[in-house]
Amino acid sequence: MRHPLHAAGRRIWTYLTHSSDPQLDGQTGEFQCTPASTSNHGRVCLKKDVLPKKEVNFYETEDEFHFAYEDGTRFQPFGTTCYAWVNQTEAVQEQTLDTLKNSPFNKIRMCIFPKFYTYNTTDPENYAFQGNAQDGFNLTRFNNDFFEKLEKRIQQLDDLGIEADIILLHPYDRWGFSKMTKQQDIFYLSYVVKRLCHFKNIWWSMANEYDLMPQKTVEDWETYAKVVIENDPYGHLRSIHNCIPLYDHNRPWITHVSIQRVDVYKTAEMITDWRKQYRKPVIVDEVGYEGNIDFGWGSLTAQELTRRFWESCMRGGYMAHGETYVDKGDQIWWSHGGRLHGESPARIAFLKEQMAQLPDDVLPLTLTQENHEENWDSVCLHEGEHFFLYYYGFFRPLYRNYTLPAGKKYKIELIDTWNMTTEELPEIYEGKIRIKTGARQYMAVRMKEVK
Amino acid sequence: MRHPLHAAGRRIWTYLTHSSDPQLDGQTGEFQCTPASTSNHGRVCLKKDVLPKKEVNFYETEDEFHFAYEDGTRFQPFGTTCYAWVNQTEAVQEQTLDTLKNSPFNKIRMCIFPKFYTYNTTDPENYAFQGNAQDGFNLTRFNNDFFEKLEKRIQQLDDLGIEADIILLHPYDRWGFSKMTKQQDIFYLSYVVKRLCHFKNIWWSMANEYDLMPQKTVEDWETYAKVVIENDPYGHLRSIHNCIPLYDHNRPWITHVSIQRVDVYKTAEMITDWRKQYRKPVIVDEVGYEGNIDFGWGSLTAQELTRRFWESCMRGGYMAHGETYVDKGDQIWWSHGGRLHGESPARIAFLKEQMAQLPDDVLPLTLTQENHEENWDSVCLHEGEHFFLYYYGFFRPLYRNYTLPAGKKYKIELIDTWNMTTEELPEIYEGKIRIKTGARQYMAVRMKEVK
Repeated sequence: MRHPLHAAGRRIWTYLTHSSDPQLDGQTGEFQCTPASTSNHGRVCLKKDVLPKKEVNFYETEDEFHFAYEDGTRFQPFGTTCYAWVNQTEAVQEQTLDTLKNSPFNKIRMCIFPKFYTYNTTDPENYAFQGNAQDGFNLTRFNNDFFEKLEKRIQQLDDLGIEADIILLHPYDRWGFSKMTKQQDIFYLSYVVKRLCHFKNIWWSMANEYDLMPQKTVEDWETYAKVVIENDPYGHLRSIHNCIPLYDHNRPWITHVSIQRVDVYKTAEMITDWRKQYRKPVIVDEVGYEGNIDFGWGSLTAQELTRRFWESCMRGGYMAHGETYVDKGDQIWWSHGGRLHGESPARIAFLKEQMAQLPDDVLPLTLTQENHEENWDSVCLHEGEHFFLYYYGFFRPLYRNYTLPAGKKYKIELIDTWNMTTEELPEIYEGKIRIKTGARQYMAVRMKEVK
Repeated sequence: MRHPLHAAGRRIWTYLTHSSDPQLDGQTGEFQCTPASTSNHGRVCLKKDVLPKKEVNFYETEDEFHFAYEDGTRFQPFGTTCYAWVNQTEAVQEQTLDTLKNSPFNKIRMCIFPKFYTYNTTDPENYAFQGNAQDGFNLTRFNNDFFEKLEKRIQQLDDLGIEADIILLHPYDRWGFSKMTKQQDIFYLSYVVKRLCHFKNIWWSMANEYDLMPQKTVEDWETYAKVVIENDPYGHLRSIHNCIPLYDHNRPWITHVSIQRVDVYKTAEMITDWRKQYRKPVIVDEVGYEGNIDFGWGSLTAQELTRRFWESCMRGGYMAHGETYVDKGDQIWWSHGGRLHGESPARIAFLKEQMAQLPDDVLPLTLTQENHEENWDSVCLHEGEHFFLYYYGFFRPLYRNYTLPAGKKYKIELIDTWNMTTEELPEIYEGKIRIKTGARQYMAVRMKEVK
């Protein structure tokens, strides 16, 4: 019950509570609503839901694939993954926040329930439900201590400008939380969503690897999605994440595609197809991690993870980072948080800077007869004929040839995405040109029209 | 007309000619047939056509994917590519042979007609037909000088143990040879096949990039294949190579699949699918080349080309090498021959040595519930439970875990495929084990049962 009152430039809201508990019923009060601070852009939403519709159909289409804050400010997710960071000791949690503060990451994938898996065998201090691992849990009683601490962490993430991509259910469990009944799941989801939805930096991930909980059917997940929607008046972003088979991301409640790559070799490159298939923003939330763990999903070089990040952005999609070094101390970032040791975060920060400079209406170049010969092996973002950004990934050409649009002149920059340098070439270019990229891998070439 | 006569342990054959030309008609003679030298294993054939059928169906199936010499000796192709080497100067041709002599390559893709393309604009000294670029060609008269020189080169390749994978037609042309009429094509093919088929080291490739000659229909290619078969009493191996769409390699005249990779990112890995689809040996004859040319097909690092080679062998297929450095002198190996400059040939030689040591009945491990957990991200060749060879490609795990077959003991070797080292571990292993691979990329692990 909300009544805005205008008095001396302030907005005063009053409230009156209704409850079946007499102690909670009939409470009243008021609070003042002040303008948002300049750094507060509101929730992250789908760009198409926030921006005024444009006249050109072409660009409306590209808007379907991107995010923006409520006030229209561009939001490009550069996420990371610390599944169980809120289930670690307070000291490790503080260290995680300190690391995040100095990182490029603006989204984090994190669970409410603790994680049981290789390298993850310790019981946490606190659980979402009352009880403990020895005596069992009371699945009708939430643990307020746990949620107060969780809320503190979500607020701290918000203070750092980081979206909390909350994983509501997941299979890596030995406490029974992945095998609650449907009724228990609904009870849990209603509570969590009601309790956390007021944070502006919340995203809902229904599950990590929903398919590894075969006891829950698609019908169950559809019901759970409804529960989330009904209990979240703010309509935060919603997704569901696979291990192997993709969920049907065409379902209307899914705001964006949160995918685990389905092929060992063709990873970020699939974004082009997934955009066509789902017509929603695509985030490859698991594309493999930088590290040296004994599994293929976490023993990538920093070069390869950085390449996958560039490839995803160049295809109009997004990606999440993770790190899995097993020989750098007690914590492994992907699950515990702690400290980062790898070489990819600095490169992701560099990529984020480059992406922040893209023109508003940039989109992936569609191959046509005219541009195919010179581009079949590369990816390109462009804004009409004003701006082109080419990326060559693992190839290392000595030079590349281009046929620039007729009658137009360009300034050109060489971007070394691994060494994190940009070099503006001294000339103004037009017509058929050759640009020396120097037989280096991971190069990009940026062209801006000059008048 | 052949009459073997047995006299003093020798075989004497006599002949009598028939011809519409009186001068060639009624000629007689005889020659002696001696046993083959020990290094002469005959033609390369399909393994299934050469080996006696085995009793176990399982292994008969795997035999469909491999080659053997006529005498049953294993032949594993490790090819290279010098499209127009016989169209270069004599000096360059001699240099090419000298380079091949010190290389691991035992097959070479080469054209009869010269090549016109970027980096290939010079007219050759000699053509298959009489005439020249200025005055045109007489497509009814072959140039005997050209064919005598070609025969010399094919014989020299044979002396080096190299199979000549002769490309009969190809599109990179400014002399008109790619646009001959169907009748002219048939006349040319009949002659070439009759003239060259007596070499034991000949393979017929109907075309390089048949789809870039759209004026020739599938019906034409099927006719041309018949012409080759009718004129080649020895039945040399036959294939046809694509640029983009694959030919239907299920056609019965095609002995093996000669493919150009169809995806920029998923290359050698497709061999698993192509084996299932065609049930013939698969050679990825173009998977990209080591070099720094201004095209994605030829600007791979040596690491990536070597990885693709390993990946192909591990999947029960084969691959061809090529090299395209544009800043190492006048010749580019892929087309002209000359000298090699890259780092992959030494690694391909090392791979060839490892593959030569494989047990006869090795085959790719099929993922099952039991082995899936530890192998979904890797490839493995095995012979029952006696032999396992795992390969980890671009991953760089610190260690890997294995569950060895119950009751069996193994010696284990670490293979660093890039640094070309093998290291036998001192222990005998059984049960659940952990092997330290040292956070290096491009590692393989070989396990041999000990009794």
